[in-house]
Amino acid sequence: MIRSSIGHVALVGAGPGDPELLTVRAARRLADADVVFYDALVHPDLLELASSARHVFVGKRGGKPSTPQAEINAALIGAAYGGAKVVRLKAGDPFVLGRGGEEAQALANAGVPFEIVPGLTSAIAGPALAGIPVTHRGAASGFTVVSGHAERTFGPVIDGLPVANHTVVLLMALAQRGVIAARLAARGWAAHTPAAIVQAAGTPESATWIGTLAELASAALPGNPDAPGLLVIGDAIGVAVETAEFRRPWPISQTVDTNPNPAPRGE
Amino acid sequence: MIRSSIGHVALVGAGPGDPELLTVRAARRLADADVVFYDALVHPDLLELASSARHVFVGKRGGKPSTPQAEINAALIGAAYGGAKVVRLKAGDPFVLGRGGEEAQALANAGVPFEIVPGLTSAIAGPALAGIPVTHRGAASGFTVVSGHAERTFGPVIDGLPVANHTVVLLMALAQRGVIAARLAARGWAAHTPAAIVQAAGTPESATWIGTLAELASAALPGNPDAPGLLVIGDAIGVAVETAEFRRPWPISQTVDTNPNPAPRGE
Repeated sequence: MIRSSIGHVALVGAGPGDPELLTVRAARRLADADVVFYDALVHPDLLELASSARHVFVGKRGGKPSTPQAEINAALIGAAYGGAKVVRLKAGDPFVLGRGGEEAQALANAGVPFEIVPGLTSAIAGPALAGIPVTHRGAASGFTVVSGHAERTFGPVIDGLPVANHTVVLLMALAQRGVIAARLAARGWAAHTPAAIVQAAGTPESATWIGTLAELASAALPGNPDAPGLLVIGDAIGVAVETAEFRRPWPISQTVDTNPNPAPRGE
Repeated sequence: MIRSSIGHVALVGAGPGDPELLTVRAARRLADADVVFYDALVHPDLLELASSARHVFVGKRGGKPSTPQAEINAALIGAAYGGAKVVRLKAGDPFVLGRGGEEAQALANAGVPFEIVPGLTSAIAGPALAGIPVTHRGAASGFTVVSGHAERTFGPVIDGLPVANHTVVLLMALAQRGVIAARLAARGWAAHTPAAIVQAAGTPESATWIGTLAELASAALPGNPDAPGLLVIGDAIGVAVETAEFRRPWPISQTVDTNPNPAPRGE
């Protein structure tokens, strides 16, 4: 097949894990793609939506190192130069700790047209699926999201936050939960401030722990130790506790016999 | 019709305005609903997805006061008590400055089962659709979202943020942009820090201004003065400027004649 023109790349957010939490636009881009470069944590059902595309894994698997970003960039550019309609399918949202900005820069520098298709970030949808609103009247008028991987990154951010009326969400933070709890306590956050650990949000393995800031450091992980997870700290977590009894999935539609006088059925 | 059991409410995020930015789950809940209570800023195409449902507007229209939250809560509870499958369709995400937590509390207090269906919040998707990542390596390791409506709310939040390596997003903030710019400058944010105004993200009327913090106070609104808008401040805005030339929508699929020897067509 010979194509005369350059292709196109869509940087697509796959959402937090549940394939139903994909956007309609993302589903259309997948259906229309010639090739899909996908991360770990992307649900396999989503690849089935790209039934006519080649699927290329570029994520981190097991203990192996992740594909270097420069290689991913080069692969996207190369596929587009070959004329392909390319989907770069990223877990969550491409622009929330997803390096989508770097991919956008690489594409623009190479003269490749691209678009952004936002996805649900686990930073907000993760807490939401556990019943936790990141804002709530009287409990949080705003929220802050930051990587919890390195203290030199999250330290300066969380140090200056107000100790009330605000929610803090830390991604990739499970290993640092003791450091984070101690640092917030030292800045004046009350010991009884609600805290939550949300793991594997939007997947069948999702698990949540809710307690207090004082308990966070010694809390056991609620899910698989290898599952990704985030921390939430703030009074809005109280909403999840208050409403837990009545929070449940929408009922599956049932087929109802609407004919009041059904005819006898034959075999 | 008599039903013996209580209904169910889904608190559903409609996303930032573009109907393609709805999630698949949200579309399914709409298709399955008996009644939909919807806000202003919800795209009319989304209501068409709820083709078998009654549609009830509960938003703010023109200069009129919005429907009081207590009335909305009572309507949701009443419909569920009547046995209906209810969708509460909210602009953006139900849990980001959307009062979804209050509705969840009211439903749980009334014994009504409910679920949360997260949606794309304009706080992240709005900047993204304008090419702005809220995080970007070397420019922002995290971000803060807060209502820009009242200084007593956003003041304590923005005062403590680090003056670099962080993105601030203020919703409902257009009228306060002078106050916000002055307050950040007084806290040490550099005059040349990039700033953006994003209006009506995800709609055909979307409009973006990008400049500096020093210019923000006197910047003219890029869009309709009545359109909703948000402010973004931080170095990550630079990505939108650098990549603007190559950011464009995915090409529409074209029908290609794959038969090299087409038969002559009759009339």
